[in-house]
Amino acid sequence: MVDTEATISLADLGERRIYDEVIEPRYRDVPSFGDDCADFGHGLVVTTDSCPTPLLERIGERDLYYSGWLLATINLSDLAAAGALPEGLVVNYTLPSETSVGDLKRIIEGVDACAKFHGTRVLGGDIRDGKVRQLSATAIGRTLPRNFMRGRWSSGKLSRRGARAKDALILVGNPGYLWGAALVSRGHADVPVDVRLQILERARRPVAQLKAARLLARHGLAKAAIDVSDGLFAAVRLLAAANGLGAVMEPEIELDDVLKDVCEKSGVSSLQLGQNWGDWCLLVAVGHRQAAYALRALRKRNLSARRVGTLTSDPEKLLVRSENGPMAWQGIDQERFTARSWQGDGIDAHISWMKEQSQAVGRT
Amino acid sequence: MVDTEATISLADLGERRIYDEVIEPRYRDVPSFGDDCADFGHGLVVTTDSCPTPLLERIGERDLYYSGWLLATINLSDLAAAGALPEGLVVNYTLPSETSVGDLKRIIEGVDACAKFHGTRVLGGDIRDGKVRQLSATAIGRTLPRNFMRGRWSSGKLSRRGARAKDALILVGNPGYLWGAALVSRGHADVPVDVRLQILERARRPVAQLKAARLLARHGLAKAAIDVSDGLFAAVRLLAAANGLGAVMEPEIELDDVLKDVCEKSGVSSLQLGQNWGDWCLLVAVGHRQAAYALRALRKRNLSARRVGTLTSDPEKLLVRSENGPMAWQGIDQERFTARSWQGDGIDAHISWMKEQSQAVGRT
Repeated sequence: MVDTEATISLADLGERRIYDEVIEPRYRDVPSFGDDCADFGHGLVVTTDSCPTPLLERIGERDLYYSGWLLATINLSDLAAAGALPEGLVVNYTLPSETSVGDLKRIIEGVDACAKFHGTRVLGGDIRDGKVRQLSATAIGRTLPRNFMRGRWSSGKLSRRGARAKDALILVGNPGYLWGAALVSRGHADVPVDVRLQILERARRPVAQLKAARLLARHGLAKAAIDVSDGLFAAVRLLAAANGLGAVMEPEIELDDVLKDVCEKSGVSSLQLGQNWGDWCLLVAVGHRQAAYALRALRKRNLSARRVGTLTSDPEKLLVRSENGPMAWQGIDQERFTARSWQGDGIDAHISWMKEQSQAVGRT
Repeated sequence: MVDTEATISLADLGERRIYDEVIEPRYRDVPSFGDDCADFGHGLVVTTDSCPTPLLERIGERDLYYSGWLLATINLSDLAAAGALPEGLVVNYTLPSETSVGDLKRIIEGVDACAKFHGTRVLGGDIRDGKVRQLSATAIGRTLPRNFMRGRWSSGKLSRRGARAKDALILVGNPGYLWGAALVSRGHADVPVDVRLQILERARRPVAQLKAARLLARHGLAKAAIDVSDGLFAAVRLLAAANGLGAVMEPEIELDDVLKDVCEKSGVSSLQLGQNWGDWCLLVAVGHRQAAYALRALRKRNLSARRVGTLTSDPEKLLVRSENGPMAWQGIDQERFTARSWQGDGIDAHISWMKEQSQAVGRT
């Protein structure tokens, strides 16, 4: 049988080839192609994302408030990657008709609470009935005007492009909480009840890094940015590739104290825990001379950030420092539409993988 | 057992009570609440809609190009209801991984072709894998600035509000093609092959009434507008209710000649065929003195339009003229989340209903 487009499935191709062979040829002339946000000109940026089945549901969370919160976060996080200020959200809910009114209210409350937390709100939407619950949203934002700062013009809008070799990779946000919650709930780290609740609480309410992104953009410190929607490895790979660069990562990621404890007790290294997805951190490339200043500026405003690596001039080479010199980074390498797509039915397999990798690279 | 929100389902409430009891109390302070588009201020309007399973698929259409075309149409049609010029679309596709590459390409081609037809394009989006195909999109538009015309200020943006008793209800577009195609394909009207193909072709490519809406808005002729997404009855009901009015409909709707033939052969009246959904017509309220002028202005630009009724000062009373005086209008009254939600598995039942109603009201 001859392979034609009718007989090749999306699973046969996988996300990257779908992107390279179907999407890119058609849309490459769109100015913002490949960025987290579409550029509508005049400072207007737009992004749309659906909410995946939250990992939290799979570890016992029944309150759809947190699905709503997540839906708003993943869309606002894309605006953060553009350094934009949110103008509002529109939502699109498909719900089975057997959904309870209480569940619908909780979704709405979660979306609204997250939007309010970031100083924005839902301005429109659509609800319809369907066989499967599907929550999607669109966020609209406005980027900063160009700004003369520290001796040069900042571009206002952030994108994946603009980074150079030797730039520092700074991870903004609080990584590790979602999978920290998974480790704790699956009994891999015996922590006190209050710590457990604290971790769960943070995992339930991931925060889009809008404040930090705008701070870095306004000061002309961020040269390129991408949000960590599929894990740090994918974010670094895409950011590096967009600039024809490679990267060397640090063997450890600075985590909050409660998570250090989880790492120690579970035998998972800080790199393995911190590189996960689900915490909606922002990865930013900052000139190596400005890195320390950027970190101080963020911390002064209580915005958590740490340096996680350095961009290099070796295209596509992703390494991690180790005691024996740089080695290949075996990061979390999901690919939608393939068996490597995270569908959430492999929590224990992923935990085992994190533990194995922690033996191979990095230290707790 | 006590009914709590956890035990009441969305099906128990139905779309209207969901809207009145859950959505409205929460979002009533949003300025554009209830309109087809969300008002983001400064002339920016945003709308988001998912693509239902097209009726065409159920009568044998296998080409997903037309699902893509429909997805763009339903979103652009909301912009038409605001009298806006499209600035671009973002798309959000959830597809089962067994979807063929050819099908994905056809969806994309259909969306892009429809966008291009209206002078706009897709500027961003997201594709992910999921159990059920779900196509949604968001359209962003810009409304006209306020304009001094014909002795008064036009508001620029159109909404459901602004109509008065005695205003003419003008239906813009080409109603009846989608259900005309259903009648023909199910053998209810024996028409020549070329007519059949012509009807199918129009049903496949419904056109959002952007041009007509902007023409009417620019000339200050449209006082209120709504797109016909769930049939003419729902559109008239919502437009009338938004203005505290009722309506009297004409017993006939002017259809294109090929559809008149279908009506005659199938025994379905022009009102019953023309009041259907799926053709993405626009319903506009026009001052009764300007109605004839508006119709001429539209026709001069080859934009199809006809007067279908008149708004009255009797709130919520929806009547249809007949030889024996006005009688209650038994329109197509769908309600999402209930058994009256159109899920497309009742094509023959709906055809029977149209035929029965044609006996009761109106003439072919």
